[in-house]
Amino acid sequence: MNVLILGGDGYLGWPTAMYFSIRGHQVTVVDNYFRRNACTELDVGMLYPIPTLTQRARIWHELTGKEIKVVIGDLTDPEIMRSLFTGSVEYAWSLDSSFPGVPETVIHYAEQPSAPYSLINYRYANFTLRNNLLTTNNLMFAVRDFSRQTHIIKLGTMGEYGTPNIDIEEGWIEIEHKGRRDRFLFPRQASSLYHTTKIMDTDLLWFGVRMWDLRVTDLMQGPVYGIETEESAMDERLRTLFNYDEIFGTILNRFIVQAVVDYPLTVYGKGGQTRGYLNINDTLQCVYLSAQNPAGPGELRIFNQIMETFSANELAEKVQRVGRALGYNVRIEHLPNPRKEAEEHYYNPTYQRLLEIGVVPHYLTDEVMEGMFRIVEKYKENIRTDVIFRGIHW
Amino acid sequence: MNVLILGGDGYLGWPTAMYFSIRGHQVTVVDNYFRRNACTELDVGMLYPIPTLTQRARIWHELTGKEIKVVIGDLTDPEIMRSLFTGSVEYAWSLDSSFPGVPETVIHYAEQPSAPYSLINYRYANFTLRNNLLTTNNLMFAVRDFSRQTHIIKLGTMGEYGTPNIDIEEGWIEIEHKGRRDRFLFPRQASSLYHTTKIMDTDLLWFGVRMWDLRVTDLMQGPVYGIETEESAMDERLRTLFNYDEIFGTILNRFIVQAVVDYPLTVYGKGGQTRGYLNINDTLQCVYLSAQNPAGPGELRIFNQIMETFSANELAEKVQRVGRALGYNVRIEHLPNPRKEAEEHYYNPTYQRLLEIGVVPHYLTDEVMEGMFRIVEKYKENIRTDVIFRGIHW
Repeated sequence: MNVLILGGDGYLGWPTAMYFSIRGHQVTVVDNYFRRNACTELDVGMLYPIPTLTQRARIWHELTGKEIKVVIGDLTDPEIMRSLFTGSVEYAWSLDSSFPGVPETVIHYAEQPSAPYSLINYRYANFTLRNNLLTTNNLMFAVRDFSRQTHIIKLGTMGEYGTPNIDIEEGWIEIEHKGRRDRFLFPRQASSLYHTTKIMDTDLLWFGVRMWDLRVTDLMQGPVYGIETEESAMDERLRTLFNYDEIFGTILNRFIVQAVVDYPLTVYGKGGQTRGYLNINDTLQCVYLSAQNPAGPGELRIFNQIMETFSANELAEKVQRVGRALGYNVRIEHLPNPRKEAEEHYYNPTYQRLLEIGVVPHYLTDEVMEGMFRIVEKYKENIRTDVIFRGIHW
Repeated sequence: MNVLILGGDGYLGWPTAMYFSIRGHQVTVVDNYFRRNACTELDVGMLYPIPTLTQRARIWHELTGKEIKVVIGDLTDPEIMRSLFTGSVEYAWSLDSSFPGVPETVIHYAEQPSAPYSLINYRYANFTLRNNLLTTNNLMFAVRDFSRQTHIIKLGTMGEYGTPNIDIEEGWIEIEHKGRRDRFLFPRQASSLYHTTKIMDTDLLWFGVRMWDLRVTDLMQGPVYGIETEESAMDERLRTLFNYDEIFGTILNRFIVQAVVDYPLTVYGKGGQTRGYLNINDTLQCVYLSAQNPAGPGELRIFNQIMETFSANELAEKVQRVGRALGYNVRIEHLPNPRKEAEEHYYNPTYQRLLEIGVVPHYLTDEVMEGMFRIVEKYKENIRTDVIFRGIHW
């Protein structure tokens, strides 16, 4: 399969590229280094340094003999997006600089993914809207204009649904109203500007699917945790980037770093906020199996991509228990909530459809957490406690 | 009341400015001449020439003694939007160049309003997304940062709902699902990219209302028809701009121009497409009464702004009947539909809440249509038949 990965330098993008490549697929990654540049601009650090995307592709080739083609460019520029379909693309690195043809699958990770980043101030809000919407629109039009058979796998988020007082279905709901019925997108109401841009992506691609019979899978992902994947275990230079700050770090990843440096685990408010979570290795499985089993023409297929649900308190307690067993003095601190969100709420999401296509979940066991502690410990000297909490409020 | 009108040069913006001004309110209009420039770029003409916004404000002052302050600027630039709240704004025209204070009401018309324009190609699609979303976001953040009591009146569209198989409520729906209940935005699924940006506006402002207790009225307007308002009748130089082309002309306005120049009325497909319509004088009433009766803090108040519903066939037949009585040989032609939309569908929208705050509808009578014919006839020499149909397809 010829696979194009947008946002191929990111936390999920690079592991996805290796996962497809080692399984024999032709992979092209595109990135503009937004995440690295933002981390520099905001001075939030990373757990360890990461080679450039070009260097990583070179290392990957040396170790496996496989080629991952690299494109460096900003996908909000429609001409760069379109070059990936017309063949006029220029590679920053490749073994063979010829165009491998129109992609059969596009995996779209090329978005600004942080809720706090989107609400630093109006300029960051505008950037998030502009980046996420224009990239998605450029992708939609490139597929419409050049290759309607191409399967778009787009990362959504469970946060699009918010915390409704009814059970959360997988993307759709049938509504009966005054004796008549119709099927609609499940209601969406997110609690950050970033999450709202993901709702807008859904609006946009649902339009494209109905108008032009596009094929779209929307993976409504929960927060991801984890570091190592089977491919990155080959060589530590292949590890994915790892943030532990409030802006780009996800909650479990942050808590483990905080535990290692004796920084209290920062639970916002009452800590009853419940979400669905998954291991980075399950993201790879979910995306891969979705690509192997594509959506049909004119289908917006929506999967809830989580494996289990926890409250913030439950996550903190798990990290505390495992950390203590490893000899860390882990404390939990409830901070005034910098966000506006329900701290106690009903939450009952459905998540069956990815299991039906063959995903085998990795649950959040003590062993999994211990493995994360062991990696984080190696880089303890790099951890800057000043970047952990910034107090960006809504 | 201190009223800020964004998009004050447009078909609805300028009549709204005069309507508030004559009733004693302090009015500031902002525009970047997008509509005029787009009409030049796309060579679609207008029925008659229009003085610049500055000239119109000067004429208005000469005739009425009232001041409408004029700002020329692009509201996708957040600094221009914010200057309207901080007082650092520069007026292109005013009697008194001092800042009248933070607006109590903002009427937001500053969007690219054409479905065909949004689908000319990917560049126009990007422009529409960028313009509409960034302007709305800049407005939301300016109100959040400087004046949370300001009432935002935002124009939505009935097209956000599409043509569902259930009755369309006014913005909201209570859903019972598996024995639990919650209230959600009524499902939205539009059939153009422009209309999809209006759904995104709703997503965005609903977020702002929940996070920061903003006060927002969303007027879900149907296609507007008409030319003259009480204020423009004072002097023909005060008339609003009038497009009769496929891109910027609304259906009834176009049909009357087509009837006058013996160009067959262009009904797309079977013509069963049913929509809600209103007279431009009713838009003014609806906006004015909404401003007089503002939404509360933390309220997203949604009104369906239509006065009656017609199918495309019914509108064509009405124009034909009135045109024939005036001596025109009006023909109706069914063209292959350039759009992807249902040509026969269920359509039962509710529209009561604007009547409840005091709007008195102007219905589409033969006299109203005859009045439009009489104005269009005066400018018959200006009408270019080559711009009527362009065949922009979805």
